[in-house]
Amino acid sequence: MGKIVCGIDLGGTKINTGIVDENGKVLYSVKVPTLAQEGPDAVVKRILKSVNDVLDHSNMSTADIGGIGIGSPGPLDSVKGIIMEPSNLPGWKDVPIVKILKAEFAANIKLNNDANAAAIGEFMFGAGRGLRNFIYMTVSTGIGGGIIINGKLYDGVSSNAGEVGHATINFDGPKCNCGSYGCFETYASGTAVGRFAREALEKGEESIMRDMAPVGEIKAEHVFEAARQRDKLALRLVELEGYYLGIGIANILAFYNPEMIAIGGGVGGQLDMYYDSMYESLKKRALGPSLNDCRIVKAELGADLGLIGAAALVF
Amino acid sequence: MGKIVCGIDLGGTKINTGIVDENGKVLYSVKVPTLAQEGPDAVVKRILKSVNDVLDHSNMSTADIGGIGIGSPGPLDSVKGIIMEPSNLPGWKDVPIVKILKAEFAANIKLNNDANAAAIGEFMFGAGRGLRNFIYMTVSTGIGGGIIINGKLYDGVSSNAGEVGHATINFDGPKCNCGSYGCFETYASGTAVGRFAREALEKGEESIMRDMAPVGEIKAEHVFEAARQRDKLALRLVELEGYYLGIGIANILAFYNPEMIAIGGGVGGQLDMYYDSMYESLKKRALGPSLNDCRIVKAELGADLGLIGAAALVF
Repeated sequence: MGKIVCGIDLGGTKINTGIVDENGKVLYSVKVPTLAQEGPDAVVKRILKSVNDVLDHSNMSTADIGGIGIGSPGPLDSVKGIIMEPSNLPGWKDVPIVKILKAEFAANIKLNNDANAAAIGEFMFGAGRGLRNFIYMTVSTGIGGGIIINGKLYDGVSSNAGEVGHATINFDGPKCNCGSYGCFETYASGTAVGRFAREALEKGEESIMRDMAPVGEIKAEHVFEAARQRDKLALRLVELEGYYLGIGIANILAFYNPEMIAIGGGVGGQLDMYYDSMYESLKKRALGPSLNDCRIVKAELGADLGLIGAAALVF
Repeated sequence: MGKIVCGIDLGGTKINTGIVDENGKVLYSVKVPTLAQEGPDAVVKRILKSVNDVLDHSNMSTADIGGIGIGSPGPLDSVKGIIMEPSNLPGWKDVPIVKILKAEFAANIKLNNDANAAAIGEFMFGAGRGLRNFIYMTVSTGIGGGIIINGKLYDGVSSNAGEVGHATINFDGPKCNCGSYGCFETYASGTAVGRFAREALEKGEESIMRDMAPVGEIKAEHVFEAARQRDKLALRLVELEGYYLGIGIANILAFYNPEMIAIGGGVGGQLDMYYDSMYESLKKRALGPSLNDCRIVKAELGADLGLIGAAALVF
């Protein structure tokens, strides 16, 4: 295996492709829009072109790299190398992406879901360095997780372990995209934060968020921005985010008893703003030793985490 | 390591100690009451005497066995060999049971909690034979779990992984013994089944359970007995048990995506009676592939599971 690999972070809005070295450093990368609505063939072409572009720019051929890793939205089958039907890649159905890449590039190709790739990235090069039992959780549009147990990714019998966002925290709660009810992500995702804000505004509550966007378009980012300006409603919603995150994290502790949970994603990146209320909520719910033995921190790798994680699938 | 070991199943009401062979067969065992109210010194004496009794009866000395395994209620520290403060062993506080046993028997001594021991027992000799990713869940007074990942027990950074009974399934639910609210076990344990029955009877519902015991003393065993006699209230409660178990098991699937969940314990042993309602509940909540790839079965090893599991800690 070479000491340099190619990573592909396939997302619903953009494809981030790059060359990453054995220290997790991105040597060169290109970002192109996914344009998912054009369907799988067009997107796959853009992926292949991106890989060729980063190789060409780096004066490298397939023989110079240790392999290609691709992180993709799930559901997918990491063993068979197939991307099934991700909700944010419309028209995709059982695309054999690993086989397609292999036909173009004679290299070792690895596929896993974006949260698992990010977990490996943070474990090898970020907050989880040197640990044995580590959880990465992304809090963004949804909530996903990646699980490192005994120093290795654990993704279950069919690549679906670590779906921490789809654990029920209130069995009579709102319907979730996944078909279940009261999932953790229906309360604590960025989507949920936006929903709670809109509901409060529709009830007539005062807030500077009204000046930021029409009520129907208020999102989590407006809530966090307003909270930074000490808006009362926004501050209450951010505290509520901590409360719900604490409930879901208590469940993670009950199941995995890990050394660390690193939180990434757009909402996860705001951890400082709701850490105290999250910890209050956790103290009421988690088993004492499990909480004492676990550090809860922000993910370290930032915007290139998906790309570095995809590359780390190969390392 | 010898091919024969000694297992000790330390419970709140009885101590089951025996000699177990490498095929998980109990060659000889003795059961004595724990008499937990007499405090740790008296109980520890009974444990030591039980081990001596089974060795003497088998004409064996410490040199003839591969070690001694002990399964105990938690919380405990499996690495340090200390039983902390189990709620059903009153007066115990940080009892260094492994050190105590080592002082009496020059053998390899292993300690783990009862659910983890049972998980290893079922994995090595019962329903989970030959699998890689396997969950054992006991549904009894409480709900506990033991996790096998990649063919090895996973018990987390401080022996507290797999506390599946203390995952929140309704954050506004009833207070749990653990201090949290709406834990899975507050809805689906045997204790919960008894509570639901008493609540219904106190409201005046008709049931043959009234002839079995005073309302205040109705327990899960009465509910299952009445359901076998087609009592309407009891049948409804058994169906409800399936509904709640389905919710908690959906969470287990979301976190671990295992090949199999084997269910033991007094209520778990009645799985046939609520399997259909459990599966209906699961279908509404679990991710399709995770449910399809998981078999949910009764544990196989029966009354000696705790003892065999304790022995299996050494194998």
